[in-house]
Amino acid sequence: MVEKKRLNIRLSLEELRIILGDRVVWKGSTEQSLKGVASLDQALSGDIAFLANPKYASQVEDCEASLILVPEDFDGEPADDQAFALMKHPSLGLAWICGAIERQLSPPPEPGIDGLASVSPDASVSDTACVGPFCVIEAGAEIGPGVHLKSHVTVGRGVKIGADSVIFPHVSVYAYCEIGARCRVHAGSVIGSDGFGYATVEGVHHKEPQIGIVQLEDDVEIGANTTIDRARFDVTRIGQGAKIDNLVQIAHNVQIGPGSVLVSQVGISGSTELGTYVVVGGQAGLAGHLKVGDGAMIGAQAGVNRDIEAGAKVRGTPHLEMTQFARIAVLQKRLPEFFKRLTALEQASE
Amino acid sequence: MVEKKRLNIRLSLEELRIILGDRVVWKGSTEQSLKGVASLDQALSGDIAFLANPKYASQVEDCEASLILVPEDFDGEPADDQAFALMKHPSLGLAWICGAIERQLSPPPEPGIDGLASVSPDASVSDTACVGPFCVIEAGAEIGPGVHLKSHVTVGRGVKIGADSVIFPHVSVYAYCEIGARCRVHAGSVIGSDGFGYATVEGVHHKEPQIGIVQLEDDVEIGANTTIDRARFDVTRIGQGAKIDNLVQIAHNVQIGPGSVLVSQVGISGSTELGTYVVVGGQAGLAGHLKVGDGAMIGAQAGVNRDIEAGAKVRGTPHLEMTQFARIAVLQKRLPEFFKRLTALEQASE
Amino acid sequence: MVEKKRLNIRLSLEELRIILGDRVVWKGSTEQSLKGVASLDQALSGDIAFLANPKYASQVEDCEASLILVPEDFDGEPADDQAFALMKHPSLGLAWICGAIERQLSPPPEPGIDGLASVSPDASVSDTACVGPFCVIEAGAEIGPGVHLKSHVTVGRGVKIGADSVIFPHVSVYAYCEIGARCRVHAGSVIGSDGFGYATVEGVHHKEPQIGIVQLEDDVEIGANTTIDRARFDVTRIGQGAKIDNLVQIAHNVQIGPGSVLVSQVGISGSTELGTYVVVGGQAGLAGHLKVGDGAMIGAQAGVNRDIEAGAKVRGTPHLEMTQFARIAVLQKRLPEFFKRLTALEQASE
Repeated sequence: MVEKKRLNIRLSLEELRIILGDRVVWKGSTEQSLKGVASLDQALSGDIAFLANPKYASQVEDCEASLILVPEDFDGEPADDQAFALMKHPSLGLAWICGAIERQLSPPPEPGIDGLASVSPDASVSDTACVGPFCVIEAGAEIGPGVHLKSHVTVGRGVKIGADSVIFPHVSVYAYCEIGARCRVHAGSVIGSDGFGYATVEGVHHKEPQIGIVQLEDDVEIGANTTIDRARFDVTRIGQGAKIDNLVQIAHNVQIGPGSVLVSQVGISGSTELGTYVVVGGQAGLAGHLKVGDGAMIGAQAGVNRDIEAGAKVRGTPHLEMTQFARIAVLQKRLPEFFKRLTALEQASE
Repeated sequence: MVEKKRLNIRLSLEELRIILGDRVVWKGSTEQSLKGVASLDQALSGDIAFLANPKYASQVEDCEASLILVPEDFDGEPADDQAFALMKHPSLGLAWICGAIERQLSPPPEPGIDGLASVSPDASVSDTACVGPFCVIEAGAEIGPGVHLKSHVTVGRGVKIGADSVIFPHVSVYAYCEIGARCRVHAGSVIGSDGFGYATVEGVHHKEPQIGIVQLEDDVEIGANTTIDRARFDVTRIGQGAKIDNLVQIAHNVQIGPGSVLVSQVGISGSTELGTYVVVGGQAGLAGHLKVGDGAMIGAQAGVNRDIEAGAKVRGTPHLEMTQFARIAVLQKRLPEFFKRLTALEQASE
Repeated sequence: MVEKKRLNIRLSLEELRIILGDRVVWKGSTEQSLKGVASLDQALSGDIAFLANPKYASQVEDCEASLILVPEDFDGEPADDQAFALMKHPSLGLAWICGAIERQLSPPPEPGIDGLASVSPDASVSDTACVGPFCVIEAGAEIGPGVHLKSHVTVGRGVKIGADSVIFPHVSVYAYCEIGARCRVHAGSVIGSDGFGYATVEGVHHKEPQIGIVQLEDDVEIGANTTIDRARFDVTRIGQGAKIDNLVQIAHNVQIGPGSVLVSQVGISGSTELGTYVVVGGQAGLAGHLKVGDGAMIGAQAGVNRDIEAGAKVRGTPHLEMTQFARIAVLQKRLPEFFKRLTALEQASE
């Protein structure tokens, strides 16, 4: 159904050997230069394919890819003009290859500040950072080595951005927020907008100025058009290695633990704290001032209004433990039958 | 309740005759110059009104509008100093008139590249395109004839934008994505941000670089602050003539069929495929790797976790066929009564 | 859990006396200069704390803050080197103090138009307005006194922005929209994008050009990445003093009454009208053409598909009166028990 779009990619087997390094055992070989990546059932000659999930192992035999990444214990043999790369984590090997392809398609620019950027003389920008056109960097900001601010990024007063972070176009980082090393923030996201707080007196909503900050720890990725509000007084924190998708709302004073994953359109209300490696499904919403334990999983569209224990799996609005939710969902569908049976009993007992 | 805001619009009946062309039969006439558009029950002298839905036909008689667009079989007669325009599709006629008013209010700018834009010497920009201030066009991009990039649009490396498309401020189009002819992309939308994919190995979420693209076919409209992620390897595709509202999330590898309509805040998870003319109500969410058949209708806030057949109408989380959903919603409200009846039976049988 | 981030704040007690003015009765005194704000249970020496909610009154005695704002009828006594400020509304006093801190951290810039802004010669910009770098102001726009457009703001043709409003980076205000006095619009929000309307004729969705506007009345605050669509013909209106959070969608022709509060990720469909002081919880969705009475409260994630009376409190999808929702939520969890009891009765009656 999807006609394949071909970008102009060329990787020789020799280059791939270098990318994958000595973590790999090779079987077979190919004369093809590699031109793309595809799933096992769609790959053609010239493609790289991969077996990440054992349930698709049977697809390897008929796969026409010129190179297939397979687990280290995979016991099939490559066809003619086909190579297998055996490795502990084929999905990781694939990530390295795609990274190399990405660098080929979009080579990183030369360090330096574009002539059309607006940089305060009181800001500090590393010599190895790259600042694109129409960026604004205000006084006191510190831009670390290897940072890449694509175009139209606004970096407020006193902001710190750690080494090798990449900030995409139209991102706004409000004053004094801190972004760690190796973070990625996608286009249009807003880091440090005001928390939503008003003191309502005699019918007037008086603004409560929000004087805290947002801190992204190292290795955080933020999707596109996501919003993270600054804390009322101290810190809204996104823990090390957490990954947040597009259009997510993080309210003031929220704490997201390291390694947590928030899927698109999730909303977390003020002061709620997520532990480590919490997973929140798309469009779920969490009320304020809750605690979610380490490793909890919150299903898509859930409405969470109470604390959640470590390791719990929940779903629904208000949320229920996942198996309870499933059982009740089944019974709800049987409500019409249920009413009939009840009525029949009533008639029989008259 | 709504005091009317008057923009400085002036259209003579003669101009309107030209706009509507020979597809129209005229009855009556007016000396008024036309200054605005309003619904039948609010229109005053000098307004243009329209009868698009037959159930409001009785409002035509008392309507004070100077011009009323009516269906070709409408049998009423205009009042003094009032004109009727009889046509097959009054709503289409209204669209043409509003288009003319819009061009009067916001005349298209002269072609050319604003002196404050940043355009790569390796990009190709048509002589008839208009590139606004603070736009960035990277190497290898191709901007077609009649395209209008308003201000602050970022066009990544190798992007193609087809003839007569209009891109509003602060839109980001990431590298290599393709936008067809006559598309409109509203302010702040992001086309081609990274799909949300990580290979998690020993507690570390390793980025899976996303090397595919997004393709908008011809005549697609995208609302404001919507996000469409690039495919992992190939193409996230929005089919010809599809219309997508504000704040919608489209994940990597999603396929939206031609003519489909997605209302605001919808989220579609990775690799899900919608057929032609699918309608998805506001805030609905679809899980990944699903297939939704042609012409299916998905209600607002639905949570879709299974395939949907062509023409089906569904609602609820997890989704149910729409009449089943309605029946169960009614029975849920009767649960208190139901429990009482059950308890009464139990007591009677003791 | 939250290590405190200290910004470089210094306020003397004398400065605080001036900020709080003569509305305050003072008890005790402190030699500390004030360096931050914290909650009663976290404040240390050098902090300002506050008692806004009487249920925390017992925390005052052990609080180490150097200054505590308390209600005017609070009868405790300050410790050594500690001051109490007694006032009618401590939360308001806190807001004033935080405002002063914010001005210290982010001093307002000098009036004037940045050399890197693009301002039409046919626009009118007050001498006391401040226009940041990479702003675009089109012909006929009127920027009032004291307005601050941060960077990358786009102000369309004929737009009016009232006195002392602050518009954050990457906000788009489409042509002819009107923003009142003392409004705040956070980064990435879009004011006046096209309403989502098409005339579908023979399988083609024909664009209905949207020729109305958006009007924000005075004292409105809009969060980050929120979208407000222009009306089809007349006005989408946000009433005086209404507060709207991040990522909210307001469709064309919606009317939001004065003082209403919309939490993050809410969606309001076309032509729906909210009265005064309506509160809508996060992620709730309202269908089109509804009327919601003054002071109604709509719970988080609710799906509203019918009119709501003044003062009503609702929740759920489709929405129910709040106590009815709660009762049914409890009974749904008992459905497994219920089915067992029904089956037992059936077996007994056989």
